[in-house]
Amino acid sequence: VTTGAPSSEFDAAIALDEAGPGRLTGHVHPGWDIAGNANGGYLLALAGAGLRRVAGRPDPVTITAHYLSPAPAGPIEVTGEVAKQGRRFTTVAGSLRSSDGEGREILRVVATFGDLAEAHADQQLLDGGPPELPEPASCARHVLPEGSGLALMERLDLRLRPDDAGFVLDRRSGRAEMRGWLAFADGRPFDTLALLLASDAFPPAVFNLDLPRGWVPTVELTVHVRAVPAPGPLRCRFSTRFIQGGFLEEDGEVWDERGVLVAQCRQLALAPRA
Amino acid sequence: VTTGAPSSEFDAAIALDEAGPGRLTGHVHPGWDIAGNANGGYLLALAGAGLRRVAGRPDPVTITAHYLSPAPAGPIEVTGEVAKQGRRFTTVAGSLRSSDGEGREILRVVATFGDLAEAHADQQLLDGGPPELPEPASCARHVLPEGSGLALMERLDLRLRPDDAGFVLDRRSGRAEMRGWLAFADGRPFDTLALLLASDAFPPAVFNLDLPRGWVPTVELTVHVRAVPAPGPLRCRFSTRFIQGGFLEEDGEVWDERGVLVAQCRQLALAPRA
Repeated sequence: VTTGAPSSEFDAAIALDEAGPGRLTGHVHPGWDIAGNANGGYLLALAGAGLRRVAGRPDPVTITAHYLSPAPAGPIEVTGEVAKQGRRFTTVAGSLRSSDGEGREILRVVATFGDLAEAHADQQLLDGGPPELPEPASCARHVLPEGSGLALMERLDLRLRPDDAGFVLDRRSGRAEMRGWLAFADGRPFDTLALLLASDAFPPAVFNLDLPRGWVPTVELTVHVRAVPAPGPLRCRFSTRFIQGGFLEEDGEVWDERGVLVAQCRQLALAPRA
Repeated sequence: VTTGAPSSEFDAAIALDEAGPGRLTGHVHPGWDIAGNANGGYLLALAGAGLRRVAGRPDPVTITAHYLSPAPAGPIEVTGEVAKQGRRFTTVAGSLRSSDGEGREILRVVATFGDLAEAHADQQLLDGGPPELPEPASCARHVLPEGSGLALMERLDLRLRPDDAGFVLDRRSGRAEMRGWLAFADGRPFDTLALLLASDAFPPAVFNLDLPRGWVPTVELTVHVRAVPAPGPLRCRFSTRFIQGGFLEEDGEVWDERGVLVAQCRQLALAPRA
């Protein structure tokens, strides 16, 4: 039986209805959160899903969100306007806001959409490659004890490289790095919209340093989608090089199973405080 | 004689007048261009100068611009609105547009402003340092023959590390890297606004590769200002690791004379075409 219902958890969680010109409504769904607040990558994908419809082009070539307030589950709206529609790209600006009560703004976003269908075929410089990872079966799936509030990790199949995974048991590697495989738990393949989720789905790289453990709130996240991913799990590497004045950057590279770079991302976040 | 006139070329070039709530007017000044189109770093500083006034906080902690059209010299306006005014940060969104004729939009911008006065004092992780550079006197000042249209390089004192500078004479290093000192030609010290100019003032790193030479148009540029720079020339390093599907990223690190990381930046640009 064919219905209009989304065929995956992720598609259901980013479903939006047209509610007027440049305005879409939907929900921050439960189950994509950490301790009740929706994950930042999921929120970016939700906003990106709305702005993609406003843009009318398939791939978020570059998207930036400023994170203004945490998002519990509940009704939201995405609004966007076209800043420029060009020959190759459409740039849109917009917001994701709660449509409960006061209509608190969650994300302010600007993004340029295009069509990356064949982008992987033309590599002129590749100074780097995917992280070396044991086969997924040899990596521990990242789950935490029941009641830890990591609902997001039930939606995802995130398998950390064993040397980066010890932080869960307080055996930190001493390097601000997290490497691993990422797939959806229900097997949905990644497309360029789902790469926005992948860009902020790993535990913070600084959890592998001897620093106070705590929230690492994102101030701003920018994702460059560099190619359409092939089916199969993603190979990801996240790292931090500079923590200064209470801020840190986290850089990410996302590679597909063919070894094609499919996204680069960087966020500015607040360093965890004691 | 004290007048209200700006005391440096850069301050004159980013001077803006209040023209209404969230609206400032000024000019894209001649002399900050390459072949008649204003430099992308200068444009970001001009937009940043306007949005800083809208935000009412001194430092652009993170700012992203999408580059929509080239900007010849002429009258412009910067418009901005506050998305969120928080305890530590103010996030603003806005535009830089030509106020000639059709009012073409040049940049679409979102930025979060804060106060970085003491940010350098608290370094918890520094995995990297400033590029090694010979003293400025041992680096060639980057100038091109008269008539080459690099007016920007008369405003700046940009001294490339000799091994990165040969591309001017077609002796390319083969590494997508540009390192060097940066100062204003008139000696103005860098503040956090001027760091936005520094983030896109160097020749493209890919000019040191064996690729067709040509425009490398910025699609999007994000700058994280990580500290208030000390007086003195900046030590900068720009590099590109991936060119794929007609896109490249260029990453920059900007360090001050004390060896403090003052900015990190990344742009997505179009690869030069034959």
